[in-house]
Amino acid sequence: MLTRKQVADTRHRAARMLENVGIALTPNERENIEIADFGLDDVERTGLELVVYENNDRYCAKELVLFPRQTCPEHRHPPVGTDLGKQETFRCRWGKVWLYVEGEPTANIKAVIPRGDEARYTVFNEIELNPGEQYTIPPNTLHWFQAGDEGAVVSEFSSTSTDEHDIFSDPRIRRIPEIADE
Amino acid sequence: MLTRKQVADTRHRAARMLENVGIALTPNERENIEIADFGLDDVERTGLELVVYENNDRYCAKELVLFPRQTCPEHRHPPVGTDLGKQETFRCRWGKVWLYVEGEPTANIKAVIPRGDEARYTVFNEIELNPGEQYTIPPNTLHWFQAGDEGAVVSEFSSTSTDEHDIFSDPRIRRIPEIADE
Repeated sequence: MLTRKQVADTRHRAARMLENVGIALTPNERENIEIADFGLDDVERTGLELVVYENNDRYCAKELVLFPRQTCPEHRHPPVGTDLGKQETFRCRWGKVWLYVEGEPTANIKAVIPRGDEARYTVFNEIELNPGEQYTIPPNTLHWFQAGDEGAVVSEFSSTSTDEHDIFSDPRIRRIPEIADE
Repeated sequence: MLTRKQVADTRHRAARMLENVGIALTPNERENIEIADFGLDDVERTGLELVVYENNDRYCAKELVLFPRQTCPEHRHPPVGTDLGKQETFRCRWGKVWLYVEGEPTANIKAVIPRGDEARYTVFNEIELNPGEQYTIPPNTLHWFQAGDEGAVVSEFSSTSTDEHDIFSDPRIRRIPEIADE
């Protein structure tokens, strides 16, 4: 569980990265950056910082911030009701990100799986994204990603986002962040 | 109709603006920036430069470049088949843009309607967008927009884009650009 201080510090760090990259936020957006620690209590290693610009019943757009070597753990977006499952396009805006999806495993992947969690990562088809490069992940496809040594800023364009339905390969994971009262 | 030289020069100018703002494009994207002159043959006054990052059957994302005081003329996105019509979110990344939609007309609007075309502009509810600010336009709603004195870069997040169905208030307009052979 994240403490309020951890949330504030992590938000501040993410806001500074976005500012350095020239991505403007409103004060309200800056104060509400979402900190996802996936319930693993080690947010700098396994975590993600998000600004949700828009999420309606037709499309969604977010800015994702990854600290150096920070990993968003393996998951998929399953069908929900009449929805096929979220389809998403990742566009690298700054830094470097390695994305892993289902398919032929890449030999000697560049990401380093968080130590101790090796069993929770099962897809290794590597796509490297540098600034200006993008990749579209089909619905219901396992994927995970990790930033390079300087971190990354990634724009996500997608169909409607329903994070609460995401299915993670690690059964310990809770997608909706919990924040301690004190 | 645009000449090939006009297209090349306008692309170059738009690419330079994006580069100055820190928005990375691939070489292929840079060479294929869409120049929309709307068939009015005065692209610096009435026109728009676009990079389409993704347009699939669920969502669309584009970067829009507007030169100083350049105007995207009034239009709406009608229903097409089972689609309600394109819904779009404009997020200002750099510069300033004034957006006009249906509703209570704003007194003393800040944009200057292209001289001679006053009759082609009918909605005047003004929304000013500065960097980090955004606005979502419902489907089938008349709108037009103009950049401030330094121009603007605007991210557009939307449902699927079908430009060929757009309905413009100016019957002279052709949305799909025509480029001279010579």
